[in-house]
Amino acid sequence: MAKITAVIDIGSNSARMAVFKKTSRFGFYLLREEKSKVRISEGAYENGGNLQDFAIERAIKALKEFLLIAKSLKVRKILAVATSAVRDAPNKSEFLARVRKELGINIKVIDGDKEAFFGGVAAANLLYEKNGVTIDIGGGSTELALIKKKQIQQTISLKLGTVRLKELYFDKGDIEGAKKHVRKEIKRLDEAFKQNKVFGIGGTIRALSQVIMKRIEYPLDILHGFTYDTKEHIKFLKSLIKMKDEELLKIGVKPERLDVIRPGVLIFTELLDFLEAKQVITSGVGVREGVFLTDLLRHDNYKFPENFNPSVRTIIDVYQINTKLSSYETKIALELFDLLKDEFELDEKYKLHLTYAIKLSRAGELIDFYEAHKHTDYILLNSLHYGFRHCDRLLMSKIIRFYKRKKIKKREIEKYKCLLPQKNIIEKLCNIFWVAKLVNINLSMPEVTIKKEKNCIIIEGENLYLAKERSKTRELFFELIIKEKGIE
Amino acid sequence: MAKITAVIDIGSNSARMAVFKKTSRFGFYLLREEKSKVRISEGAYENGGNLQDFAIERAIKALKEFLLIAKSLKVRKILAVATSAVRDAPNKSEFLARVRKELGINIKVIDGDKEAFFGGVAAANLLYEKNGVTIDIGGGSTELALIKKKQIQQTISLKLGTVRLKELYFDKGDIEGAKKHVRKEIKRLDEAFKQNKVFGIGGTIRALSQVIMKRIEYPLDILHGFTYDTKEHIKFLKSLIKMKDEELLKIGVKPERLDVIRPGVLIFTELLDFLEAKQVITSGVGVREGVFLTDLLRHDNYKFPENFNPSVRTIIDVYQINTKLSSYETKIALELFDLLKDEFELDEKYKLHLTYAIKLSRAGELIDFYEAHKHTDYILLNSLHYGFRHCDRLLMSKIIRFYKRKKIKKREIEKYKCLLPQKNIIEKLCNIFWVAKLVNINLSMPEVTIKKEKNCIIIEGENLYLAKERSKTRELFFELIIKEKGIE
Repeated sequence: MAKITAVIDIGSNSARMAVFKKTSRFGFYLLREEKSKVRISEGAYENGGNLQDFAIERAIKALKEFLLIAKSLKVRKILAVATSAVRDAPNKSEFLARVRKELGINIKVIDGDKEAFFGGVAAANLLYEKNGVTIDIGGGSTELALIKKKQIQQTISLKLGTVRLKELYFDKGDIEGAKKHVRKEIKRLDEAFKQNKVFGIGGTIRALSQVIMKRIEYPLDILHGFTYDTKEHIKFLKSLIKMKDEELLKIGVKPERLDVIRPGVLIFTELLDFLEAKQVITSGVGVREGVFLTDLLRHDNYKFPENFNPSVRTIIDVYQINTKLSSYETKIALELFDLLKDEFELDEKYKLHLTYAIKLSRAGELIDFYEAHKHTDYILLNSLHYGFRHCDRLLMSKIIRFYKRKKIKKREIEKYKCLLPQKNIIEKLCNIFWVAKLVNINLSMPEVTIKKEKNCIIIEGENLYLAKERSKTRELFFELIIKEKGIE
Repeated sequence: MAKITAVIDIGSNSARMAVFKKTSRFGFYLLREEKSKVRISEGAYENGGNLQDFAIERAIKALKEFLLIAKSLKVRKILAVATSAVRDAPNKSEFLARVRKELGINIKVIDGDKEAFFGGVAAANLLYEKNGVTIDIGGGSTELALIKKKQIQQTISLKLGTVRLKELYFDKGDIEGAKKHVRKEIKRLDEAFKQNKVFGIGGTIRALSQVIMKRIEYPLDILHGFTYDTKEHIKFLKSLIKMKDEELLKIGVKPERLDVIRPGVLIFTELLDFLEAKQVITSGVGVREGVFLTDLLRHDNYKFPENFNPSVRTIIDVYQINTKLSSYETKIALELFDLLKDEFELDEKYKLHLTYAIKLSRAGELIDFYEAHKHTDYILLNSLHYGFRHCDRLLMSKIIRFYKRKKIKKREIEKYKCLLPQKNIIEKLCNIFWVAKLVNINLSMPEVTIKKEKNCIIIEGENLYLAKERSKTRELFFELIIKEKGIE
């Protein structure tokens, strides 16, 4: 696959382009995203669904400049799709031909099932949960994809859109009518879609997650992966349907969303009720990422390899992290973990956090060596987007942030307490992390034996001079004795 | 010059290794630093200055592990120097021969003038000021280098060291005796060393800067480049000489510094008095950086090219920033600046900040595209170490941080007010920055003409469709009209 790929997506309201750069076989990051308010469907409704000249003109101009961006970024492959607005237009072939002729772009008009599939591929591969159902609420339609073991089982496109409902009902104040319409359409859903977990895709659901994050004073400013329990917020969400503009603005709805948020909430809450969903997992990714991944993973059954995390891979690639060193340090850390877990009452699950913390710990050195632990913390909180729960990501980053210290101050993690384990658990993981790094302080991956005798960890091997010296500079939760082989 | 270079420096107290990675001809960053408390001079004093076997043994072991680090990091060149402790030892050749034979390292014993020279090269090239005198207070000696136009004019090594004074006077409570000793030695200084600016090198002076930063609640946690006026703090500094341990700890002196801080303060304040220095500029760099730069710049008269900033270059290299795009955007920004400076009452000096802000603005995209402006702010505050005043660095980073907004909230910059210009100046620079970026939103560097008519900026050219669309989404301090050529 080309190293740099652009995905163009023409929706009813705007055209967008996302440019992805591959860093290795499956590593990638978003290089750029741009959008233009093309409103391709403007005037179409009154004209038998036909795309109008002025709208086509806008699309051509926007696409032309998208191509300039692609050229500047050395894009090698362009994947362009169009969804409901173009799909439903009787004169779409005219538009498609013009774009092909004038710009050389082949736009693929995708049906609702395909659209649902792309959203599903993005959610299944880039969120932490393997099972659930995606909901992607758009202006003209709403797509669902049923995911089991990261595999898409079933898809459907409902004729429910925010703009559609707004024009047909909300503008006339007929909320009851809208509700009836929605419920009728939802009946088309197969029972199999009823799932505990919902992956929420698209602007409406993201906006609602933001409102909830503000409401509960969520400590992280990260949308992708933000998870909430339906039963805690469904009542509040439903109350938005009848809120006035000022109230909506007050709770954090952006002005440009005001006109479609109410119908959006109606569709969303009705779906949540029908699906009997217990949790909503917010997705920052959608159709564009799905198109990219579908291409990237076309020989891999549209799935990353088992236990592969694309963000981890990308960080390792981008910051050129030496994985030999980190594998060695991980081995030491897990050995220590096994020796200490009973005494420290450490749950096995924390091995995951230790492993990734070590894997990524050197990323921050590129920003500044002396304070690398702070910078890695920063990078993890801001780059490690895919495949982790917020709580996992936060724990990894805080192990790195605090590993040099014996004590973490309460106020330093107070605001994260809903997401982190108890302070003393973090401190103990920090201890293990520190010792694993210490043993490899000279980067020679020394062969060592590690034993535990009572409350004492004894590490023996060659080339441990610096490690031994440094070991005396800090207090740990256990006694640490480092012995240089053959030297008393 | 080799891509990765290690500099080893054997002082009286510790041996250190700094590993530098070159990113281009003059771009480089610190890849790693390690130290070992070798205390090479331990026991030497009582034995006619001769290095003792156990101390030599420690040095060999530490150096052996330094070599392991160098190997792991693929170091291609090792530059090793030793200063006063080895210099003064009658049996130094024995030690040097062993290191050469057993480890293959050629240690160069440098005299006091050379040591002063290295400190001078580091300060002259990596701090913002071109004229002044360096003071590098060590355990056994103190070096000064007189710098004019970044060129070293004169050097001297004084037989004044913190450990020396401590043992001879402070341990006996004879502060007056110490003072006399210091004043006598200082008399050796040439009048030419009397300079307004002092570059402070070494652990003692850094520790004092940290104490002052804490005292004045300095808003940045950056030591290198921190500048203070002598007359504001000299009295306070002198008061440290008679402080008890608890008091010193309370004002922020680290426990491991307690034993040498008082003699250090005495040497420093006496020198400041003699030199009649008005300002102290703290240096985070010293002999090791000087050794590296002396090698790097050996064909360049030990100076970077005029107007070259190594940190800027390194960030451009590391984050692979497209300099063609930023040069174009800079040109636009400076054109706008010239059109608006009178009306906005903008000082010419801010062109510098705009230029560098644009040059570096894309760095943060590697962390995450959507919030790149925040990440670039972070990178600038944490990576842009060399060659800028803190106030300049901060203004550049804040222009980037806030350029998307019309208004900056007072509380967002309140704590930096001693370092930043007025809020409305920053906001106006942000406006100019935003428009410069806007014109190039499609990365095609369109040819444009820029005019000002009354309070209106008119930009005309081809390929400005996205720019025009986006220009309507935000309010500026001036009216902005974007015209697409040939289109009404």
